[in-house]
Amino acid sequence: MRVYAARWIVPVHAPPVADGAVAVDGGRIAYVGPRSTAPAGDLVDLGEAILLPGLVNVHTHLELTVMRGFLEDLAFRPWILRLTRARQAVLTPALLLASAKVGIAEGLLAGVTTYADTCESGVSLQAMVEMGVRGIMYQEVFGPDPAHCDGAMAGLRARLATLQGEQTSQARLGISPHAPYTVSDALFAAVARLAADDGWPIAVHLAESEAESRLVREGGGVFADALGARGIVVAPRADSPVALLDRLGVLAVRPLLIHCVRATAPDIRRLALHDCAVAHCPASNAKLGHGVAPLLELLDAGVRVGLGTDSVASNNRMDLLDEARLAVLMQRATHRRFDALSSTSALALATHGGAGALGMAHEVGTLAVGKQADLAAFSLGSPRDLPGHSPEDALIWALAGRPAALVVVAGEERVRDGRLLRPPEGAYDALQEAGRALAAWRLAGNA
Amino acid sequence: MRVYAARWIVPVHAPPVADGAVAVDGGRIAYVGPRSTAPAGDLVDLGEAILLPGLVNVHTHLELTVMRGFLEDLAFRPWILRLTRARQAVLTPALLLASAKVGIAEGLLAGVTTYADTCESGVSLQAMVEMGVRGIMYQEVFGPDPAHCDGAMAGLRARLATLQGEQTSQARLGISPHAPYTVSDALFAAVARLAADDGWPIAVHLAESEAESRLVREGGGVFADALGARGIVVAPRADSPVALLDRLGVLAVRPLLIHCVRATAPDIRRLALHDCAVAHCPASNAKLGHGVAPLLELLDAGVRVGLGTDSVASNNRMDLLDEARLAVLMQRATHRRFDALSSTSALALATHGGAGALGMAHEVGTLAVGKQADLAAFSLGSPRDLPGHSPEDALIWALAGRPAALVVVAGEERVRDGRLLRPPEGAYDALQEAGRALAAWRLAGNA
Repeated sequence: MRVYAARWIVPVHAPPVADGAVAVDGGRIAYVGPRSTAPAGDLVDLGEAILLPGLVNVHTHLELTVMRGFLEDLAFRPWILRLTRARQAVLTPALLLASAKVGIAEGLLAGVTTYADTCESGVSLQAMVEMGVRGIMYQEVFGPDPAHCDGAMAGLRARLATLQGEQTSQARLGISPHAPYTVSDALFAAVARLAADDGWPIAVHLAESEAESRLVREGGGVFADALGARGIVVAPRADSPVALLDRLGVLAVRPLLIHCVRATAPDIRRLALHDCAVAHCPASNAKLGHGVAPLLELLDAGVRVGLGTDSVASNNRMDLLDEARLAVLMQRATHRRFDALSSTSALALATHGGAGALGMAHEVGTLAVGKQADLAAFSLGSPRDLPGHSPEDALIWALAGRPAALVVVAGEERVRDGRLLRPPEGAYDALQEAGRALAAWRLAGNA
Repeated sequence: MRVYAARWIVPVHAPPVADGAVAVDGGRIAYVGPRSTAPAGDLVDLGEAILLPGLVNVHTHLELTVMRGFLEDLAFRPWILRLTRARQAVLTPALLLASAKVGIAEGLLAGVTTYADTCESGVSLQAMVEMGVRGIMYQEVFGPDPAHCDGAMAGLRARLATLQGEQTSQARLGISPHAPYTVSDALFAAVARLAADDGWPIAVHLAESEAESRLVREGGGVFADALGARGIVVAPRADSPVALLDRLGVLAVRPLLIHCVRATAPDIRRLALHDCAVAHCPASNAKLGHGVAPLLELLDAGVRVGLGTDSVASNNRMDLLDEARLAVLMQRATHRRFDALSSTSALALATHGGAGALGMAHEVGTLAVGKQADLAAFSLGSPRDLPGHSPEDALIWALAGRPAALVVVAGEERVRDGRLLRPPEGAYDALQEAGRALAAWRLAGNA
């Protein structure tokens, strides 16, 4: 039995414990409470620190870590195009794997223990296993042309068959029909049937941009133009992207819906009715100019919501405490309400909320006896922490952005004293090299 | 001569220099350019780092550092009331001085070399001098009752007479009639005359809250009720807070106007006409539920704008790179424009823009030969920095929130290797103690 003691324990579902301890046994939490009554064991005294559940990042693209800083100040469609072309031209599977590992390294140093990753290449599952973190890799599938639906489904099934054996108890597979502007109605319906038949978790990018809404509602706009140029018939499909997925049976399989910036009141009622989950990504939504998602309205409707950083190609960091702070600031600023969200509710979104959005609330997201021992601790002791009042306020308002002192996944230490215990060998150098290759590709006249 | 070399030099007014150097001689910048052609001198090789001008924080209340985390989730008036009552009941001048020093320690570790501080007690000037930073302390003056105008002015003159001798070439005095809800028309006019006669820089909190606008426009709302209860006659004063200061002669002395969240198009024209400056504080404005200031419109009108963190009682951090990132995210989210502001323009706001807002652009804000040697450097080399493309994108998007590796003020090193060279002795302990005293004051039933 190992016992972690700290100035503050923040269980999330219960009030903070001053001078507390968490005991870990067999990869699970065996005790949460005052240090004075903790069981005997190997004591790790974290001192002036706050110990909380490992953070849950409900949306990222780990393979795109290599794209950080490479797609700045572009409109949404040119952003997608440069990403896609550069990936095809420059990035090998080995580079994408290195990219995913560096992404996890960054996340671990920010206290993220669970990753919900949408992945085209399929490398993230291996990266999660090798880096020793928890997560779901949603294998992406694309296909805007309904004539290619069967081919896309065959490709998806083949990919799942290959990857299935790589799954562990911590790192699982799911499926992701990418978004309404890259997936036909037929393919959405077919993927939903596969999810229902085989029990795969499913995730979709939805209601992110105005261009996407226009495509679905009117069959017009930049996405419609691009599809039309490829000879794909475009017509109005539904009143909104959410209504589209409802009609196609996707909402019935309780998907994780990524973004939902443009969810309307009727959309939110549909999401609540079908018990869908939402990945809220405030930094990415702001940086790309999409806007501010209706977080308060989603929470009021009882929708399960977690926080996602999105890829570092659109954020440009994976830092979930920072994302939580930003979620509060965006809601307070746009609703003009000082009480729109508290630090306590923001912290709940980054932990318990994320776990609920991924269907993992029975395993992670709070510090409770019997749950998986996924822990993160942040040290106090710099001028920024003074004076100390509530640890939740300190975490969200003052510490957000700081590296974690300790990170534990299923009882195994991944970060200690602010350092990764198993840094991804060679991956940092590979990523720098890939960054130079991307820059050279652009200098050669590619867009 | 000392020569700082780094992977990247970001002069701000000119493109970044790869493998560059900055030479410092007699407290001023003697060279900026490639390392290969730098003059000979004591070489400090910062290695994988970005060296840029010291950051300029155009609005803070250093004495209130002790209030961090003590005023959470309160509406604006209760927030002000608890702050004022707790300060009177608990905080001594010695504690306020310690508070200001810890605030500067935090700022230095975030790369802030220049501080524009509004201060009630008058301790910040001493704190700036002892900590060796650059700045202006605006001595605050309050007085909503016009009958007490002469007394308030006498008090202000006496305070200035006392403090005047403490000024240095780096740390200067200014004056600040606090805000329309705490300052009468007569007092605003009298302070503006003093500023004009004696050449004091002047700063005013303005157009921050809806309650303030209502007070000025209608003579109604929570501030009017509170003033009425004190027997002060309240009536409509002007169409807007900006119009009020125009009528009273305050705009004519080119004040620094703090917040301006509610500045309208006609207000912005007045600000541009009088060459006023604005302190933009996006985190504080969001956290307190005031909204998002019209930053793009202010910049389009040619108004001088800098970035302020406000006090840590309403932020809760002093981190200007983070503030710059937030400024961009807020504008992009609310204007739904991916190109609302670039990292380059955000960095300019945090340096050159702030210097211009304070009338210091000839001395600081860019790396240029002959200017004061105020420098900040941030190290690269963590997973969050990979891969590296533009140093400006890295600073704003990925590094924001990270401690500075090096900070230099007027050629004197204040931070080296991420550590303060002159930490404020005893101040950290004093602040923790004061924090406990504040908590006890509240536990005793005070609000």
